[in-house]
Amino acid sequence: MAKNQLTPKTVDMSKWYTQVIYQSCLADYAPVKGCMVIRPNGYEIWENIHDALDPLLKNLGIRNAYFPIFIPLSLLNKEAKHIEGFSPELAIVTHGGGEELKEKLAIRPTSETVMYTMYSKWVHSYRDLPLLLNQWNNVVRWEKRTYFFLRTTEFLWQEAHTAHATHEEAWQMVLDGLSAYKNMVENYLAIPVISGKKSAHETFAGATLTTTIEALMPDGKALQAGTSHDLGQNFSQKTAFDIAFQDQKGNTAYAWQTSFGLSTRIIGALIMTHGDDDGLVLPPRIAPIQVAILPAQESEVVTHVCEKLAEDLKKSGIRIAYLSDLTHSLGWRLNEAEIQGTPLTVVIGERELAAKKLTAKIRHNRTEETVNIENADRTIQRILETIQEDMYKKALKNMKELTTEVQTFEEFEQVMKSKRGFIKAFWCEQESCETAIKRETKATTRCLPFINERGAVSEEKGVCIKCGKECTHRWLFAQAY
Amino acid sequence: MAKNQLTPKTVDMSKWYTQVIYQSCLADYAPVKGCMVIRPNGYEIWENIHDALDPLLKNLGIRNAYFPIFIPLSLLNKEAKHIEGFSPELAIVTHGGGEELKEKLAIRPTSETVMYTMYSKWVHSYRDLPLLLNQWNNVVRWEKRTYFFLRTTEFLWQEAHTAHATHEEAWQMVLDGLSAYKNMVENYLAIPVISGKKSAHETFAGATLTTTIEALMPDGKALQAGTSHDLGQNFSQKTAFDIAFQDQKGNTAYAWQTSFGLSTRIIGALIMTHGDDDGLVLPPRIAPIQVAILPAQESEVVTHVCEKLAEDLKKSGIRIAYLSDLTHSLGWRLNEAEIQGTPLTVVIGERELAAKKLTAKIRHNRTEETVNIENADRTIQRILETIQEDMYKKALKNMKELTTEVQTFEEFEQVMKSKRGFIKAFWCEQESCETAIKRETKATTRCLPFINERGAVSEEKGVCIKCGKECTHRWLFAQAY
Repeated sequence: MAKNQLTPKTVDMSKWYTQVIYQSCLADYAPVKGCMVIRPNGYEIWENIHDALDPLLKNLGIRNAYFPIFIPLSLLNKEAKHIEGFSPELAIVTHGGGEELKEKLAIRPTSETVMYTMYSKWVHSYRDLPLLLNQWNNVVRWEKRTYFFLRTTEFLWQEAHTAHATHEEAWQMVLDGLSAYKNMVENYLAIPVISGKKSAHETFAGATLTTTIEALMPDGKALQAGTSHDLGQNFSQKTAFDIAFQDQKGNTAYAWQTSFGLSTRIIGALIMTHGDDDGLVLPPRIAPIQVAILPAQESEVVTHVCEKLAEDLKKSGIRIAYLSDLTHSLGWRLNEAEIQGTPLTVVIGERELAAKKLTAKIRHNRTEETVNIENADRTIQRILETIQEDMYKKALKNMKELTTEVQTFEEFEQVMKSKRGFIKAFWCEQESCETAIKRETKATTRCLPFINERGAVSEEKGVCIKCGKECTHRWLFAQAY
Repeated sequence: MAKNQLTPKTVDMSKWYTQVIYQSCLADYAPVKGCMVIRPNGYEIWENIHDALDPLLKNLGIRNAYFPIFIPLSLLNKEAKHIEGFSPELAIVTHGGGEELKEKLAIRPTSETVMYTMYSKWVHSYRDLPLLLNQWNNVVRWEKRTYFFLRTTEFLWQEAHTAHATHEEAWQMVLDGLSAYKNMVENYLAIPVISGKKSAHETFAGATLTTTIEALMPDGKALQAGTSHDLGQNFSQKTAFDIAFQDQKGNTAYAWQTSFGLSTRIIGALIMTHGDDDGLVLPPRIAPIQVAILPAQESEVVTHVCEKLAEDLKKSGIRIAYLSDLTHSLGWRLNEAEIQGTPLTVVIGERELAAKKLTAKIRHNRTEETVNIENADRTIQRILETIQEDMYKKALKNMKELTTEVQTFEEFEQVMKSKRGFIKAFWCEQESCETAIKRETKATTRCLPFINERGAVSEEKGVCIKCGKECTHRWLFAQAY
């Protein structure tokens, strides 16, 4: 893979982003408009996200299943706001097996309607609840233009769908799902996020309330990284999917539901958050290759030390690449490791062996650490942990620097024109003000931040920056991807 | 989950099969014709198949990627036999994002054409080869009626697609892929298979040669469990996908390709091979729950011993269920474990503790083993290994008993009318005889068996059972799912 001159990230992040994706072979444009191919270097990041998130969901008692990709339009129509929200984005199958279909089928844009048809069949008694299912699958929401990872007609995600006997229990699951996302995104992807609830206008089509984790990209634009919805009884009610059950007293009740999803979109946030002018930089816990080992020259003893280190690291569960092909120059191989976003590269040559010290090159801050050959594997593991922490701290610092509290709309406008970022401001929660702010500044409400894991929000006295009406909540605003 | 009286397996295996799938909550009919829902008990089997097979493919140097589900019809048309084979089974998208599409899109029935469009873009030099990619995804081949796992409009599978500089290297990959399947199916699913090559008529649409692993179900019908194709240069040639590269001498050459796939269909084989009149029986290496632990009564010391055993087994990587809810009777909980196909169940009560011995109930042969409480976890692991071996041996014995070598067509007909099974018989390799045999006996050629891992076949002198012409190969015939 050749490394080209990239457009500097600070000059044009959008150009830089596409160039990095090409340079690192993360993805490519597909022969179908709006679609992308996820190449191995990109897909292995998704595999690692799966492996990090899947156990967190299983810990909540959620089990994986698989529901069909086809949804008859009559099912999609059962929840009025849901079909209204998704209708413009649908792909429609009209022919199957050489015949025109009697009922047209949508390709799932999300699986509420096909899943809840089954939930209605399976749930009869409070003993059948909670019903906690998840699927890892592909969904389709029509797009005309591909924006790698961030906006594609087809994307990969997981969607969890739970049904409960009480609203209290369902609300707890909404928060637990959101916490799992925050945990994965902050601790594995090293991307800090703000949890909160969405405005009525930004609520998922069919939900009573949507919660979200919001990340901030280095260019000052926000990226919604995952959402968890309280569906209330909107889908379970008799006139929709009729998920009725006998409660403990023998009365008929309707299930309280939630759904939550996280998609390949997050890979876009990962690239933007950590990459630099030289290209891709990945945090250790999610990097397909965590350590690259490079022999400096042909030598039996160098080979021996390299192989032993590779073996020791593999035994500790570290994902390594041993770039031992000496027909390629050291520079070429260093470049190869860099293109893959490898967080740590170790060069081993005769000079290093003579000094009994290795040099570990840390990608994200371009520093080096000297490592004693003895127990090098343990030292390297410790360095990887430090890199993970440092990358998170750096991103957090950046987010804080790009977060501004404003009191007036003039200030709001000024910040949005200069550095952008998150803006905290009082808003009256009227859609008219939200729309006006968006029209004039391109900034949307991202969320009303939670102040704890139970979904509490802080109450203060203030006035709406747009209409001046008294109100109690400071919302988070930003322009968004 | 309630356990019902099942139709005995020997009386009507097809009825039994559907009843077992319902009883064990493996799957359900979806609201779309021809489609199924894979419920958690079924999907977790697929997760374990993934976890067993994926590393075997990665060991071959294959990396995972993701290509779009949509294939423009113009791409599908590029390889004449490929489109001819798949055309009757396609689902067609005609509308997207509220507009009629200029070019109709097929939902992938398999991904050769969309992947090879990209291969053509990525491959320029012999240095770009081999290109070894795999994807785990969903595909659609239209069916009017659902036959759980065995025949569904949408199914899950993996499809590996490789491109090589020489035919020799490609052919080795065809065999390596097939060996990986045989390894996984025999060693994890405990289903013996016969490897071999398909007849010209049964070859994959677009391949020059198809290899297969064939399993035999207890009712004497064969089930194709996985296929690996030599695509030659059919797809890479200039008039198809033009996957051209400069070879080491600087000449233009065309890639040699393979593809191989294994699907959720194999779960059908798993259910049929090992289940009995009481329902589902799973081999330990693939069972979602390997050991169920049941306390016999409420008691502090019993709880303690159960929890310790559960902990010890989990530490050794054993998948356990601790069925500790004493509001359910012991019988109810034993039934619960049985419904899940759990290979081993351990009951622990005060009687067992007094004797310092546990009773381990082995599901597949309805025997019991006495286990000393001390080091019980290690003994249990050993028992699980024995169960795995015994289940394979039992299935192998069954396959051998159902395999007959015949010399005449009369014998052939007689066997197919009575016990069915695999029949080994000389065949002249003319399609006319193959078609006549199928018409008269419903039996098809399953494969010409390989006698070693290099794909060699044995040569003997004989005469075709149908036309009497001299020929050299004994083929394997069977009626098939």
